[in-house]
Amino acid sequence: MAESTQGRYVEPGQEFNRDTNYIEDRITRDGRDGWPVEAGRYRLVAARACPWANRSIIVRRLLGLEDAISLGLPGPTHDKDSWTFDLDEGGVDPVLGIERLQQAFFARFPDYPRGITVPAIVDVPSGKVVTNNYPQITLDFSTEWTEFHRDGAPDLYPEHLRAEIDDVAEKIFHDVNNGVYKAGFAGSQRAYERAYDTLFTRLDWLEERLAGQRYLVGDTITEADVRLFTTLARFDAVYHGHFKCNRNKLSEMPVLWAYARDLFQTPGFGDTIDFDQIKKHYYIVHSDINPTGIVPKGPSDTGWLTPHGREALGGRPFGDGTPPQPPRAGEEVPPLRD
Amino acid sequence: MAESTQGRYVEPGQEFNRDTNYIEDRITRDGRDGWPVEAGRYRLVAARACPWANRSIIVRRLLGLEDAISLGLPGPTHDKDSWTFDLDEGGVDPVLGIERLQQAFFARFPDYPRGITVPAIVDVPSGKVVTNNYPQITLDFSTEWTEFHRDGAPDLYPEHLRAEIDDVAEKIFHDVNNGVYKAGFAGSQRAYERAYDTLFTRLDWLEERLAGQRYLVGDTITEADVRLFTTLARFDAVYHGHFKCNRNKLSEMPVLWAYARDLFQTPGFGDTIDFDQIKKHYYIVHSDINPTGIVPKGPSDTGWLTPHGREALGGRPFGDGTPPQPPRAGEEVPPLRD
Repeated sequence: MAESTQGRYVEPGQEFNRDTNYIEDRITRDGRDGWPVEAGRYRLVAARACPWANRSIIVRRLLGLEDAISLGLPGPTHDKDSWTFDLDEGGVDPVLGIERLQQAFFARFPDYPRGITVPAIVDVPSGKVVTNNYPQITLDFSTEWTEFHRDGAPDLYPEHLRAEIDDVAEKIFHDVNNGVYKAGFAGSQRAYERAYDTLFTRLDWLEERLAGQRYLVGDTITEADVRLFTTLARFDAVYHGHFKCNRNKLSEMPVLWAYARDLFQTPGFGDTIDFDQIKKHYYIVHSDINPTGIVPKGPSDTGWLTPHGREALGGRPFGDGTPPQPPRAGEEVPPLRD
Repeated sequence: MAESTQGRYVEPGQEFNRDTNYIEDRITRDGRDGWPVEAGRYRLVAARACPWANRSIIVRRLLGLEDAISLGLPGPTHDKDSWTFDLDEGGVDPVLGIERLQQAFFARFPDYPRGITVPAIVDVPSGKVVTNNYPQITLDFSTEWTEFHRDGAPDLYPEHLRAEIDDVAEKIFHDVNNGVYKAGFAGSQRAYERAYDTLFTRLDWLEERLAGQRYLVGDTITEADVRLFTTLARFDAVYHGHFKCNRNKLSEMPVLWAYARDLFQTPGFGDTIDFDQIKKHYYIVHSDINPTGIVPKGPSDTGWLTPHGREALGGRPFGDGTPPQPPRAGEEVPPLRD
């Protein structure tokens, strides 16, 4: 599941199998699940460290949903039971008034048996989790929350491209987004090598696909780019070493590295990335892979700001829309470190 | 100590301190320690995986001591008590007739209390370890075994350069050879970061020193180059990920990477390197750093064979001498893997 809490990540002799069962309620315009779209009612809880949560933070920024949906930010190093609001004053989320995200899951289902995952959307009045179904959350931001989109918000999930976006996103999910976890959490050499081969075969495919086009689908940024980006952003900082995805660094794949930098430098992407939190999360939480808890100092982050040259491919990042404003006060990330 | 056997590598909260106490007997022309130079009498036991042992394998090759000193090759994954001859038929060294290097240490000192290390030189008739004092072993190969050097053997420790070689080697030992271990075996974030900073400061210094000269000291290969090479050869394969020395890969430092490739492609260097054994050793033996025992598949080894362009700096690799012949039958390493 999406960055779940659990005590153990590697099952000796086993492949890694992601639990893809979530609370699948949706927040919709028609409120058919009991959760109507309503500004100010819901809180997105999304740790910066987590790639699955990062998607929702990016889409919220791109669409300008900050006024409609507030953002709670658990710290990078959850314990075995729950993500916690340890970065907030007093260790308490200022809106939900809870210390542990688990409390919102238990408010909804007192015996909730699965991992406590981010992203999760919480209904503020009742304190109950509405959904933690991350692939649907971002799509619903795009399609159900249109009333609250900012002026100039891009269409990240255009109707005529949905089939292609879904297809590309599905490949990327299995081989890349979840592929790095399958390599890193492999319980056998064989399972690891299979995941590694699949991952790099898919990255080679992406390297080729993106050589002649600026974005994954169509000529504007879409949901597919958001989904690929959050994994690429963590590649050299974490997956290359910690998950042993080390055929090469992202920075050694010229096309994908330029593509990733292009997105990073686009408002709404890089300004959601906190490399310090990302590294702490993986290297401290996965104690069965890194029992010393030492967090690598490298690599330098500032390479992300070097020119990428992708404008030469054309493309219109926001289509007929415009980039978002800078992050609001309290939602900024720290500067990059050399 | 030089690639010792011990159950635990990381002491929480502690810095890594290498035990530098060895059996310091020397094999000399005058036999003053009771061990005179004598062809056919001694066996060098040196695992290909180990950088300290690798030095002695390289120097033996460069000087053409193969006929005078035979070579025993323990496998890459020793147990907690001893390096073992698990690659040999029946798991027994064909000359010494033992399964575990520990037996030769116990033959010398029945209560030998320290780690069982390679390289070690064993007196074949008595089966006793003479010395495991690796920094002296290679110097004695150069200075005491001259009678048995091949025609055209280089002078790896020329008298007029010894002070400079010793000085450079001392810096490299503390900051690089042992520096990567201090980073990898650090028991605290602070100790790790200190070792990391010292390592990369020294690598930057080397990058600058080697920009205008082909070798570390003088214009020929010396002992100093041998000592640096065995660490550089393991950098991207192991130290970058496993020991978290990840400011950059060696292949991202243009001068040092070209310098390392130049040596790798010089007879006597690359033909002693077995990347598969190297990776297995670190990733399997250090179970307190890599408890899963998964061995990374990357990176590709074949980059070592790309042109380095260092000939343009001049230099005479073997001085007035010549390169060694290819490795003898039974001492070849496997081909590089892509």
